[in-house]
Amino acid sequence: MQASMQLRSAAASKVAGKNAGAIAPVVPVQRVNRRAAQRLAQAVPAERDFNTTAFTKELVQFAGTEEYIIRGGRDKFPALGKAFQGIKQVGVIGWGSQAPAQAQNMRDSFEAAGLDIKVSIGLRNDSPSCTEAEACGFKRADGTLGDVFDIVSSSDLVVLLISDAAQAKLYPRILAAMKPGATLGLSHGFLLGVMKNDNVDFRKDINVVLVAPKGMGPSVRRLYEQGKTVNGAGINSSFAVHQDYTGTATDIAIGWAVAVGAPFAFYTTLESEYKSDIYGERCILLGAVHGMVEALFRRYTRAGMSDEEAFKHSVECITGPISKTISTQGMPAVYNMFDAAGKKVFEEAYAASFRPAMDICMEIYEDVASGNEIKSVVQAGSRFDRFPMGKIDQTYMWKVGKAVRAKRVESEIPLDPFTAGVYVATMMATVQTLLEKGHPFSEICNESIIEAVDSLNPYMHARGVAFMVDNCSYTARLGSRKWAPRFDYILEQQAFVAIDNKEPLDAEAFKAFLEHPVHAAMAACSAMRPSVDISVASDAEPSSTEGVGVGGARTEYRSTVAAA
Amino acid sequence: MQASMQLRSAAASKVAGKNAGAIAPVVPVQRVNRRAAQRLAQAVPAERDFNTTAFTKELVQFAGTEEYIIRGGRDKFPALGKAFQGIKQVGVIGWGSQAPAQAQNMRDSFEAAGLDIKVSIGLRNDSPSCTEAEACGFKRADGTLGDVFDIVSSSDLVVLLISDAAQAKLYPRILAAMKPGATLGLSHGFLLGVMKNDNVDFRKDINVVLVAPKGMGPSVRRLYEQGKTVNGAGINSSFAVHQDYTGTATDIAIGWAVAVGAPFAFYTTLESEYKSDIYGERCILLGAVHGMVEALFRRYTRAGMSDEEAFKHSVECITGPISKTISTQGMPAVYNMFDAAGKKVFEEAYAASFRPAMDICMEIYEDVASGNEIKSVVQAGSRFDRFPMGKIDQTYMWKVGKAVRAKRVESEIPLDPFTAGVYVATMMATVQTLLEKGHPFSEICNESIIEAVDSLNPYMHARGVAFMVDNCSYTARLGSRKWAPRFDYILEQQAFVAIDNKEPLDAEAFKAFLEHPVHAAMAACSAMRPSVDISVASDAEPSSTEGVGVGGARTEYRSTVAAA
Repeated sequence: MQASMQLRSAAASKVAGKNAGAIAPVVPVQRVNRRAAQRLAQAVPAERDFNTTAFTKELVQFAGTEEYIIRGGRDKFPALGKAFQGIKQVGVIGWGSQAPAQAQNMRDSFEAAGLDIKVSIGLRNDSPSCTEAEACGFKRADGTLGDVFDIVSSSDLVVLLISDAAQAKLYPRILAAMKPGATLGLSHGFLLGVMKNDNVDFRKDINVVLVAPKGMGPSVRRLYEQGKTVNGAGINSSFAVHQDYTGTATDIAIGWAVAVGAPFAFYTTLESEYKSDIYGERCILLGAVHGMVEALFRRYTRAGMSDEEAFKHSVECITGPISKTISTQGMPAVYNMFDAAGKKVFEEAYAASFRPAMDICMEIYEDVASGNEIKSVVQAGSRFDRFPMGKIDQTYMWKVGKAVRAKRVESEIPLDPFTAGVYVATMMATVQTLLEKGHPFSEICNESIIEAVDSLNPYMHARGVAFMVDNCSYTARLGSRKWAPRFDYILEQQAFVAIDNKEPLDAEAFKAFLEHPVHAAMAACSAMRPSVDISVASDAEPSSTEGVGVGGARTEYRSTVAAA
Repeated sequence: MQASMQLRSAAASKVAGKNAGAIAPVVPVQRVNRRAAQRLAQAVPAERDFNTTAFTKELVQFAGTEEYIIRGGRDKFPALGKAFQGIKQVGVIGWGSQAPAQAQNMRDSFEAAGLDIKVSIGLRNDSPSCTEAEACGFKRADGTLGDVFDIVSSSDLVVLLISDAAQAKLYPRILAAMKPGATLGLSHGFLLGVMKNDNVDFRKDINVVLVAPKGMGPSVRRLYEQGKTVNGAGINSSFAVHQDYTGTATDIAIGWAVAVGAPFAFYTTLESEYKSDIYGERCILLGAVHGMVEALFRRYTRAGMSDEEAFKHSVECITGPISKTISTQGMPAVYNMFDAAGKKVFEEAYAASFRPAMDICMEIYEDVASGNEIKSVVQAGSRFDRFPMGKIDQTYMWKVGKAVRAKRVESEIPLDPFTAGVYVATMMATVQTLLEKGHPFSEICNESIIEAVDSLNPYMHARGVAFMVDNCSYTARLGSRKWAPRFDYILEQQAFVAIDNKEPLDAEAFKAFLEHPVHAAMAACSAMRPSVDISVASDAEPSSTEGVGVGGARTEYRSTVAAA
């Protein structure tokens, strides 16, 4: 796989050279003539093709490779009736990061579409989350709130959003409780990884599908609400059909993605999704960015910067102007914002950081792909009662950060070329590893770039590192705690030392950055960018709603099955 | 296992209360009368008992539990002839950390015992290590240096000391090349872990034994040389008999331990050994102590200490007076050295650090026991060509350290109560985890305490962190790089924050420390302490021999099979 992928990306590289910066065309399949369709169909490998009767798939070019995608939006709500034919109840199990967002979005979408589909929440009867669910309008009286297994056995689509650790523990009972012919919906392929480690298959008389929004739950709700007035606002999703017992699984999966508010949905597999997702959050999405800013802050203070300046030149610079620029113009635009002297600093920082970052990215990918990370997460779940997850933002640096944010003038945040070089190099290492491991560009762009700059960094920008990390899943929170320190150490021990010792730089690495096909792929993704940026309330107004009722980061411990 | 162990250690705790500080009696089995022997035999579980015809086993009490051990020393060399009956050639495969030491020690011991047993080194013919082996007197001309597989197939005892990664790759060919009835000798149970992951067993017509010296190779050689003039100098070992095809495997294993220079040898199993060993080096032996001093150094400089003072109060303090005190008088003696104000600081630092350190220790143990760590190490081996291990001691702090060492006056190294509390708490977390997981006290004391203070910390004291870490195996070096940053972060994020915020302290944790049975077990181990401390040359004289010919830490990359 790796060898053929290298060939493919070498070819892609040439195309990218031609198309770099151009927006790739989105071609509805119906408009392509038959011969062209045949030719194009060959270009999309069979395992990445799908058929839908309720929606229209579109062909997209990502840097010379082709994928079919689905365009969502409120104007597609009329198709939900056909997609959800025969589905009378959607049971959303759990009340963690994703469940409040997805349940409320679906309920609102079904109402807007005039559909009589009940959305019910399944929780332990004594779960402390029941109060929150009730506050969002889910009630025992009308059957929209009930016991986990009652809701599982009465639902036609079971959207399983309990924590990964709880899934690992409860999946045999959940699967056993489902109606034959019902659909199991996952927002993460994690469970497949667990079942692989356990050497167990899904029962054959159900559908198994996935819709994975490319952002944390609070973002999914926040942007959906904004989308009610601005069509196209929302968080993009990937979707997958792992098992199609009824023959309608693909339409159900796409319908779910559209109902949750995805402006665009990309096709993947459960395996490709969980590998790239568990990997991505350990790399640039959460772990790498956290470890990197700790290392940069130390470096800048040791060099004599004041604590507040150092925070601005590390964290603020990344979560502010760098994220904004990548989001709207791509990574090369960050480099191009600097003058000649700044460009030189960026180049050096990039060249020194790329290989050390790749070293850790490859280790993470292989630990995820081999099942190690999933086994570790499950083991950690069994230790939570004795060792609850601790806070990560009470250290000196993050107290400085709080003071900096309180006085922030957005337009005065410095753009530091050293920080920019380290950040972009680590993002590119995240990209390059996925590319070498054979992932499609839609997934690479989302799991390495878009989710970072459009969904996660804005949370760190608003209220610091814990507000970003601890609003995510347990798997993500554990992974970020595990790998952030590794990026920190390797950058300080290898990248910074190389620069300070004026060691010869890896000029090839920087050249490869400028010519990389991912920039053309990102340009194609830009055409599919949601129309509204996320906006998150700051420390100053933490009680405002961020999509979930609670607002604050979930830094407190909850038992692994409490979410159920 | 865990529940019964807790009962046992509760009982042990009472005994410890009575015996704390007393030296446990060493009772040669022959001197115990029959009835007493029956009673004692019941006290040592069958899986921890063994029979030897060439040596004499002795019964030792460790904090209320009993184990049989073997006493080595040069006066036991006459028994080597009986132990090695039928063995004409010992093939030592590889030339990494352990091989130069073990091969030279055995050659010297056989000569001293007047035995005609050839010690031959097996290496790839084009291995760069051949020159070093030749410099140590192993020659192609007389058959004491040859190709790996030639030496394997011609040896009666094959001591396999190639790197763990190389073992994982080559074991099918190595096993196939062995003579029927020969003995495979391992110095690490790692290979068993690999074969478990691969779901494969050892072939049945060979012996499989283990001798694991409780220190890095250079220490094993250095102290053996000192033991030539001072009987009892050496590094203690554990030993195990995994498969006894000939009925003589136990005597061969013990003979090997004695010939390598172990003053005492403790009985274990391959599984217990690899779990405690891979775990221990990730905790207080290497990983934890590295991460801890990075966190302490930062804390002290931020509090206004000069860089050199901060280095003295963190690294120097641990590798100097704290290690020395624990080595000779045990952990409580460190606490007792302080005045009332110092004791209070120690208590606070201990109470705040113990639980965070336990959190990481438990994670490490379960990652080791589940096979995750071994799988990760094997995967890392396959990436070495692209991502060689980087240096860890070129950062600012370790440059400060070099300057501090150059000016060191040993008697003026400060004893910092905060550092002492954090260090002892992390050492106790390493101990407590092994105890809860059911390991015997001889193993716990060696893998958590003795190896740290008597064998490893002296290397960091002499020439910094890389000289300690990178003189160890690849598995250890990878593990230290992986886990050091985790201890660093959790101590800063949880322990230091709790102290600075004056959070209520875990008084139970400190009480449990004072009453812990490990102190009585360590007192028993003290009776078995080698008679000579290790001495390691400093930065100022790095060319002096440290047991291996090379002297410097193995910080440079070698291909995973280069050692073979």
